[in-house]
Amino acid sequence: MRAVDLIRHKRDGGALDADDIRAFVAGVTDQSWPDYQIAALLMAIVLRGMTLDEAAVLTDAMVHSGRKVDLSEFEGTPVDKHSTGGVGDKLSLVLAPLAAACGAIVPMMSGRGLGHTGGTLDKLEAIPGFRTRLTLDEMRAVLRRTGCALIGQTEEIAPADRRLYALRDVTGTVESIPLICASILSKKIAEGIGALVLDVKVGRGAFMKTADDARRLARWLAGIAERNGVRTEALLTPMDVPLGRAVGNANEVVESIETLKGRGPSDIERLSITFAARMLVLSGTAAGEPDAERQVRGALSSGAGLEKFRDIIAAQGGDPRVVDDYARLPQPSAVETWAAPRDGVVADLEAELVGRAAVALGAGRDRADQAVDPAAGIDILAPVGTSVRQGDPIARLACRDGARLAAARELLARAVTIGDQATASPVDVLETVDGRTL
Amino acid sequence: MRAVDLIRHKRDGGALDADDIRAFVAGVTDQSWPDYQIAALLMAIVLRGMTLDEAAVLTDAMVHSGRKVDLSEFEGTPVDKHSTGGVGDKLSLVLAPLAAACGAIVPMMSGRGLGHTGGTLDKLEAIPGFRTRLTLDEMRAVLRRTGCALIGQTEEIAPADRRLYALRDVTGTVESIPLICASILSKKIAEGIGALVLDVKVGRGAFMKTADDARRLARWLAGIAERNGVRTEALLTPMDVPLGRAVGNANEVVESIETLKGRGPSDIERLSITFAARMLVLSGTAAGEPDAERQVRGALSSGAGLEKFRDIIAAQGGDPRVVDDYARLPQPSAVETWAAPRDGVVADLEAELVGRAAVALGAGRDRADQAVDPAAGIDILAPVGTSVRQGDPIARLACRDGARLAAARELLARAVTIGDQATASPVDVLETVDGRTL
Repeated sequence: MRAVDLIRHKRDGGALDADDIRAFVAGVTDQSWPDYQIAALLMAIVLRGMTLDEAAVLTDAMVHSGRKVDLSEFEGTPVDKHSTGGVGDKLSLVLAPLAAACGAIVPMMSGRGLGHTGGTLDKLEAIPGFRTRLTLDEMRAVLRRTGCALIGQTEEIAPADRRLYALRDVTGTVESIPLICASILSKKIAEGIGALVLDVKVGRGAFMKTADDARRLARWLAGIAERNGVRTEALLTPMDVPLGRAVGNANEVVESIETLKGRGPSDIERLSITFAARMLVLSGTAAGEPDAERQVRGALSSGAGLEKFRDIIAAQGGDPRVVDDYARLPQPSAVETWAAPRDGVVADLEAELVGRAAVALGAGRDRADQAVDPAAGIDILAPVGTSVRQGDPIARLACRDGARLAAARELLARAVTIGDQATASPVDVLETVDGRTL
Repeated sequence: MRAVDLIRHKRDGGALDADDIRAFVAGVTDQSWPDYQIAALLMAIVLRGMTLDEAAVLTDAMVHSGRKVDLSEFEGTPVDKHSTGGVGDKLSLVLAPLAAACGAIVPMMSGRGLGHTGGTLDKLEAIPGFRTRLTLDEMRAVLRRTGCALIGQTEEIAPADRRLYALRDVTGTVESIPLICASILSKKIAEGIGALVLDVKVGRGAFMKTADDARRLARWLAGIAERNGVRTEALLTPMDVPLGRAVGNANEVVESIETLKGRGPSDIERLSITFAARMLVLSGTAAGEPDAERQVRGALSSGAGLEKFRDIIAAQGGDPRVVDDYARLPQPSAVETWAAPRDGVVADLEAELVGRAAVALGAGRDRADQAVDPAAGIDILAPVGTSVRQGDPIARLACRDGARLAAARELLARAVTIGDQATASPVDVLETVDGRTL
C-alpha cells in the first residue's frame, strides 16, 4: 500500500495489517517516509486508535528496527521491571539487586526523569563514576559478572522509536495508549527479556489519574508484551504521595541503600519485595509466590541484596564505597528546613507538587536536554500521619544553587496540608493484570 | 500559543480562535511551521472538524497569505461561478460570456481536471493560443476589455493554499469539508469578487454522492463565503449522467459554442441560463430573477453571448476564428464508434465511468503533473432515452494515441446500460442554498 493510502485507511478508522505496519516502521527507520507523512499517520493513530494486535505488531516492528540483544547465553529467563513513573520511586535500585541476588538475570534499561517524575538513570548517575551508557556488549559483560545491568537506551536499540518519539513530541501525538505502549515496550523487548513486571502508577502524581485509566494502560502494556512472547504482569500501585521519604537523586540512592540494609521506609521495602518476588516467579527463578517471597526476604535480611548492589556499582564503574559512606555522594551546598506553619497532623503531601518542588531545586528537568543537580532534592521528615507542632520540620530542601530555594519552597507549601486528621493509608498493590488473560 | 499546543487543542476537539488560525496560516506561508506540524494539524482538522466560523477565518487568512485583487475600478459587483466538478460540465464556457454580455464583471479563476472530472482550464487551452496563465494585471486589462477573464490560479493568489494543498495530497488529508471549502473559496475570494454562485454537483459522477452530503457542502461553502463578505448562493444540480453530449476538451469547446449559437443540448442551455441569471441577480446587474433571465435569454438569442466569447478568446490570445471554424481546434487521429450491443433503449450512461473513459483516452489526468490530449474525448451520439437497434452508434471515441482506445472502450462498455425502459429525467436545479440564511 502506498504511504498515503495507508494513512487514509487509518484515518477512516481501519485496522492496519502487519505488512502495512512493518512497511511504515521500515520507512521511519530508513528515512523513506518523510516527516509529514509520519506526523499525519501518528495523528490518525492518536484519534482513531489501534487494536491490541496492531499495537503488538507495531512494537515488534520497532524492536526489529534495531538490534535485539541476544541473552541466550544465560540460563533462565531474563526479567525486567518498568514503572510508568512516579515521585520518589526508587524501587528499581532496590529490587534489581534483590532479584539478581536471588539468581534472576536482570537486564534493566531505564530512562531519565521528565517533568515531576524522577528517572532511574539520573539517580544512578548520582553515584560517582557510575556509567549508564554501556554498549550492548558491555551490558552483557556486566550481566555475566553480576546478573544485573542498569543502563540507558543505546543507539542500537529501537532507532524507529527515537525518530517517532522526536516527532510525537512536536506534533501533539504523545498522548496515545498504543503509541506509548509501543515506545516503552519496544525498548524493553529489545533488551532480550522473556519476562516483565510493570508498575503502573495511579493517582494524582501519576500519568494515569484514575484506576480505570491505569487499568486500561496496564492491560495494553501487558497484552502487547505477552503477544511479543514476554511473560508479563502489570501491578497497579498508588502514586498520590511520594514513595518513601527521599525525592531527588543522591538522597534516593541513600534511601535505596538504607532499604537494602533493612532500614528503609516500609512502603519502599514492601513494594520492592513484592515486585522482586513477581520477577522471580515470572522468570521461573522461583517455584511460586511463597518461594519467591521467601527468597527475596532472605536476600534482604542476609545482606545479599546490598552486596549485589555494591557489585553492580563496581561493575558499572561506580564507587562502591558509597554503600558504606554516603558522604561520597554529591553534597548540597544550600539546605533549608520547611517547618509546619501550625499545629496539627500532616494530612497530605501531594506527589506532583513535591515532584515539581524537587525539579525547582534542580533534581529533575522540564526539557529533555536539561542537566540535573544530583545533590538536589527533598527529604520528607514528617510523612503523612505525623502529628506536628507549629515550627516542627516537615521537609528538608537541598541543592547546589541557593537561588532555586524560593520557588521550591513555594511549591512545597502548596504540596503540604496540615490538618486535624491524617489520611495516610498503607501503600500496596491495588490490583494485578496478567498478560496471559488479554 | 505554541504550534504544538495549537495542534493539541484541535486534536482534543477544541475550536481554534482567530489568532491561532492566523498564526498557523502565517507559519504555512512564511515556512516557519515545518511540514510535519502542518500535517499533524491537518489530520486533526480532518478528524475533529472545524466550526463554520473557524473555517471562515481560515479562508480569510488564506486569502491574505497572498494578493487580493482590487477590482474597485469596475462599476458593480464582480461575480463568479464555481462548480464542484462533473463530467461534461462546460457550463462556465457558456455562462461566463452570457453574464458578461449582460454587463456583469466576471473574473473567473478555474482549475484543471483531475480524476474523472474535467477542468475549465483544460477545455479553454484546447483553443489554439488561449492563455489562461495571466498575471493579475493582465487579468484586469482583459476584464476592462471584455468584462470577463478566464484564468488559472497565479503564484500571487493564496500561496498558503498551494503549500497546504500539496501537503494534503500526500498526507491523506484532502477529505475535509472545512479544508476543501477554505481551499476553493480562498482562491475565489482573492479574485476580488463580491458575489458567487456555486454549482454543487450531486450524484454518482460527483464528489458528493447524496443530496445530504451535497447540501452539507453547499451550506459550508455558502456560509463561509458569506462570512467573508461575498453574497453567495449554492445550487445543487444532478451529476448522474454527463452534462450535454461532449466529454473532453476541444469537443466541449465546440458544444459550448453551439450552445451560444442556440443549438446546444437542452440541459447545458437550461443550466447556463439559470446560473448566469443568478449571477446577474447576486451581483446586482439585474433587478431580479425575471429581469435577469430575460437579459440572459436575450444575450443568447441575439448572439451577444457568442460575440462576447469571441472577444474573450481574442483578448486572451486565442484564435477567435474557432467560433466559426471548428476545424481550427485540435483534431484527433484515432476515432472509433461504440455501437449498441443489442436492441433497446439507452437506459444509463454512468457519468464517472464515462469520465474515466475520457481520461483513458487522454482527455484528463490522474495525477496533477500529467498533460492532456486536447483532441481526446467522447461524444455521446445516443443520449439516455434514445431507442437503439443493435449496431447503432452510441458514442464516438477520439484521441491522438490509438493505443488508448482499448481501455476507454472497456470503461465505456461498463458505463452504458441498454435496457427496455429509459430513465432519463430533465436536468435542473434540485435546490438552492442561500448563504445569508447560514
